[in-house]
Amino acid sequence: MTQNRTVRLQRRPVGQVRRDDFIIADEPAPEPGDGEFRVRIEYVSLDPAMRGWVAEGRSYVEPVVIGDVMRGFAAGRVDVSRHPDFRPGDAVAGLFGVQWYAISNGRGVERADTGLAPLEAWIGGLGMPGKTAYFGLLDVGQPKEGETVVVSAASGAVGSVVGQIARLKGCRVVGIAGGPEKCAYVTDDLGFDACVDYKGGNLADALKTACPDGIDVYFENVGGEILDTVLAQMNRFGRIPVCGLISTYNSTEPPSAPRNLRSILVNRLRVQGFIVFDFIKRYPEAAAALAGWLREGKLKFRQDVRDGGLEAFPDVLNLLYTGGNFGKLVLRL
Amino acid sequence: MTQNRTVRLQRRPVGQVRRDDFIIADEPAPEPGDGEFRVRIEYVSLDPAMRGWVAEGRSYVEPVVIGDVMRGFAAGRVDVSRHPDFRPGDAVAGLFGVQWYAISNGRGVERADTGLAPLEAWIGGLGMPGKTAYFGLLDVGQPKEGETVVVSAASGAVGSVVGQIARLKGCRVVGIAGGPEKCAYVTDDLGFDACVDYKGGNLADALKTACPDGIDVYFENVGGEILDTVLAQMNRFGRIPVCGLISTYNSTEPPSAPRNLRSILVNRLRVQGFIVFDFIKRYPEAAAALAGWLREGKLKFRQDVRDGGLEAFPDVLNLLYTGGNFGKLVLRL
Repeated sequence: MTQNRTVRLQRRPVGQVRRDDFIIADEPAPEPGDGEFRVRIEYVSLDPAMRGWVAEGRSYVEPVVIGDVMRGFAAGRVDVSRHPDFRPGDAVAGLFGVQWYAISNGRGVERADTGLAPLEAWIGGLGMPGKTAYFGLLDVGQPKEGETVVVSAASGAVGSVVGQIARLKGCRVVGIAGGPEKCAYVTDDLGFDACVDYKGGNLADALKTACPDGIDVYFENVGGEILDTVLAQMNRFGRIPVCGLISTYNSTEPPSAPRNLRSILVNRLRVQGFIVFDFIKRYPEAAAALAGWLREGKLKFRQDVRDGGLEAFPDVLNLLYTGGNFGKLVLRL
Repeated sequence: MTQNRTVRLQRRPVGQVRRDDFIIADEPAPEPGDGEFRVRIEYVSLDPAMRGWVAEGRSYVEPVVIGDVMRGFAAGRVDVSRHPDFRPGDAVAGLFGVQWYAISNGRGVERADTGLAPLEAWIGGLGMPGKTAYFGLLDVGQPKEGETVVVSAASGAVGSVVGQIARLKGCRVVGIAGGPEKCAYVTDDLGFDACVDYKGGNLADALKTACPDGIDVYFENVGGEILDTVLAQMNRFGRIPVCGLISTYNSTEPPSAPRNLRSILVNRLRVQGFIVFDFIKRYPEAAAALAGWLREGKLKFRQDVRDGGLEAFPDVLNLLYTGGNFGKLVLRL
């Protein structure tokens, strides 16, 4: 009999998640029913949104129920199948949860072409983060050729793809990242026109130097002081797709920034929140575009793969909120 | 020889405007050149945007230059004309400045049909405030039948028209205003479904009671704490046209609210600034619609007419920022 190991939510975290907010439960792996298959998970995706999923209160999806397996994207291979379209050995990605084995009926599951990209890329640049970048930039941000696009968390799973797509669309692209190593990666490897180190001192001046014509699109992953600084440099009729506000997710106090809201009025900005799930009907379009660019060598992804098993899940997740990861963060099982 | 009296900007105000930020200058009235006419001004419009026009720094229009006549909308009658389309006695409204006499070449000038509405309404509900309401609500806010629309500064020049148009479009309309008298006017005279008194205690609870199905469109005139409270009650895919942030215009410190920006992300809100000048090509459409509704008795305007001459201009202007006016504020000359 196959043993499963699961990470279950034990209580709602306060501030950063702690190991004892979760319990590791060993239990028999479930068997697939008719029309279902079982996946043996190899990589679990760590995403900023996870902090919201375990918080109480109204959000864009129901919070994870206390006692349930932690929600999470994951990639693996089909192990046992009673589904006509999935066979043992098939590489798949989906919302399988933070555990060793998951049961699926195939809905919302993507096939991972490991000839095109390694399995873990299918929960990264080719998965939700890549699709988030695609729809958030193109549909919400609507960049035009020659415009200046600024992306925060630029070396991260979403930001790195946003910037590369914006370059492909003929924009001047400026990243914001933490530390010289990440900034060098963003310009030298990903091909951004410039990258500003938010830990490097005067962000406002550095941004002004990097964006001499102002900012037309700001792809927001961070919030807080960075948003405030960018707001003051937005051009008229600029767009701010709000993808994430990671600087605030672990706060126990509500954030006080931004102070520069007047820029929304004076410059007629459009500030618009979005969630990738809203674009679910157009996932195939994004997947095809991203795979196409990857095949042509126009898109690069960087995975930050961590070991340590499911026990390490809370600690690895916290790396996201402290800037401790470098690239798309995944846990290898 | 005709004498003119002008209000000229003497220095940039700090906080609320003061009488000695301006000087009253008596000078000969200018004579119209070929293709020009002279207007004898009867009503000067007091608009929240004026505080921004005298502030230093980047805005949507150039600031008033020190020494220049204060910018302002006004209504009056043609006095002398060397323009083929304007005759002495014609009632007109335009950006004539805060003074007794203005020269115009007719550009941007509207004819005031005083058979339809009194002259002062042409700088109120039928003028810029009415057009601001029309484009801001319909184009930026895009309300749908059955949705809940909330308007701040609901008894004011813009807010009162926003709410009445939203009612005409089949929305549930809730105003926010200061004090029981203004609230009674908003519901009893203007026909809003409800009005919440922001001075009345717990705004969040009162708003929740008035908007049991949440808020789909929030027409923002105020900013600050009110925006913060509304953000927490917005529905998914809600829209927030940002027309004004009057609570912040006289601040010498940048405002710290809103804290509830996370609602933009979670609820996929669209927060969008706009300026009526952006819609200049469509002014005739708005003017026709507003006049039509007025003719059919579906639209009401309330003017708050003040006397005291040009000397009173700074004090009357300040009424806007303290909630001291009740309806569209105009200065009668």
